[in-house]
Amino acid sequence: MSSYPIHSRNKVKRVPRNAHYDRATIYEILDAGNLCHLGFSVEGQPFVIPTIYGRIGDRLYLHGASKSRLIKHGEGGHPICVTVTHLDGLVLARSAFHHSMNYRSAVLFGVAKPVGAADKMRALRAISEQLLPGRWEESRLPNAIELKATGILELEIEQASAKIRTGPPVDDAADCALPIWAGVVPLRQQLGTPIPDEALSPNIPFPQSLRDLGYC
Amino acid sequence: MSSYPIHSRNKVKRVPRNAHYDRATIYEILDAGNLCHLGFSVEGQPFVIPTIYGRIGDRLYLHGASKSRLIKHGEGGHPICVTVTHLDGLVLARSAFHHSMNYRSAVLFGVAKPVGAADKMRALRAISEQLLPGRWEESRLPNAIELKATGILELEIEQASAKIRTGPPVDDAADCALPIWAGVVPLRQQLGTPIPDEALSPNIPFPQSLRDLGYC
Repeated sequence: MSSYPIHSRNKVKRVPRNAHYDRATIYEILDAGNLCHLGFSVEGQPFVIPTIYGRIGDRLYLHGASKSRLIKHGEGGHPICVTVTHLDGLVLARSAFHHSMNYRSAVLFGVAKPVGAADKMRALRAISEQLLPGRWEESRLPNAIELKATGILELEIEQASAKIRTGPPVDDAADCALPIWAGVVPLRQQLGTPIPDEALSPNIPFPQSLRDLGYC
Repeated sequence: MSSYPIHSRNKVKRVPRNAHYDRATIYEILDAGNLCHLGFSVEGQPFVIPTIYGRIGDRLYLHGASKSRLIKHGEGGHPICVTVTHLDGLVLARSAFHHSMNYRSAVLFGVAKPVGAADKMRALRAISEQLLPGRWEESRLPNAIELKATGILELEIEQASAKIRTGPPVDDAADCALPIWAGVVPLRQQLGTPIPDEALSPNIPFPQSLRDLGYC
């Protein structure tokens, strides 16, 4: 897979050795998450909204209520920015200055456009699969009323960049002799034990989508 | 503590029963995190950048390299939006339509301004304490060169809103009889075992900041 073109808006200027522009790296960051932060601007006022997403190739899908500000604005063909970030660790250096985080982030740029009725199911399936693979086939699928109430935006990724920091703290040589503990505290997002809905009948089988995550 | 004023930009329109405008709720969401997504707009182009932050009262502090786009732009007195989101669970409904996430998010609006040299240490301390309480006092504190290389923005929170979803899925009554498993899979951010820096001398004591988190 190729790389995204580098322009001024997606060029990583700080610590450029941590920057990546290839699709493989950026897709991997997107596919590992289920939350993005969507940025859009209305008359110079930026908004940053957390939401879930799905990806098909170079297209990201975002959904919301048809009448929401997000969807209404997105349908106007404005530029948006979507960022996905994974925190991987607290980086504790000897100096306050060199404290950092280990992380993987992807920042995507493009113009949102509305997804037409014919393509809504495919986009919603991508969002559902991103949340929990296999869940779409287990669910009662959207009906015509629900599809109409759901607005979906498609972002064709025009430019993107990833930034990844891994590994130990990097202190100035002069600080390494200081009697200060330094290291990394790993961070990860952890799934807990599924809690069945109270209204669930006892004879309903545990879903394959959760079995595939290791639950039983 | 009082609530933030409600204007069009911070008014939650979708599922307003999940909205909160009081400082206590919004501060709690901010204080529980260490990553925010900062949104700013340059000539109509939105940018969403992941970064760490600190809070002192109604002011949020964000830092970066003095010469970075983020800091340079923020010093211009433009409106910004800062969002902090915690994912608490996958909400698996019987219908695809009612799938959701449990989450807590806070969205802050205001104008960024640069922090002057005299206040930089106090702001950096707040950012450090947000990352790991007690770590600031353990670290080699910033020197004059490091302070000069660090740009800090102050966001006085003018308006804000929080949105919180908790609890089980809410399916349509007609769907509750379907033989489909429904429930919540909890999600949390988990700290792992600290990894000492390889260059660390063996006689350096384990830090109190990490002991306070339960490590030894």
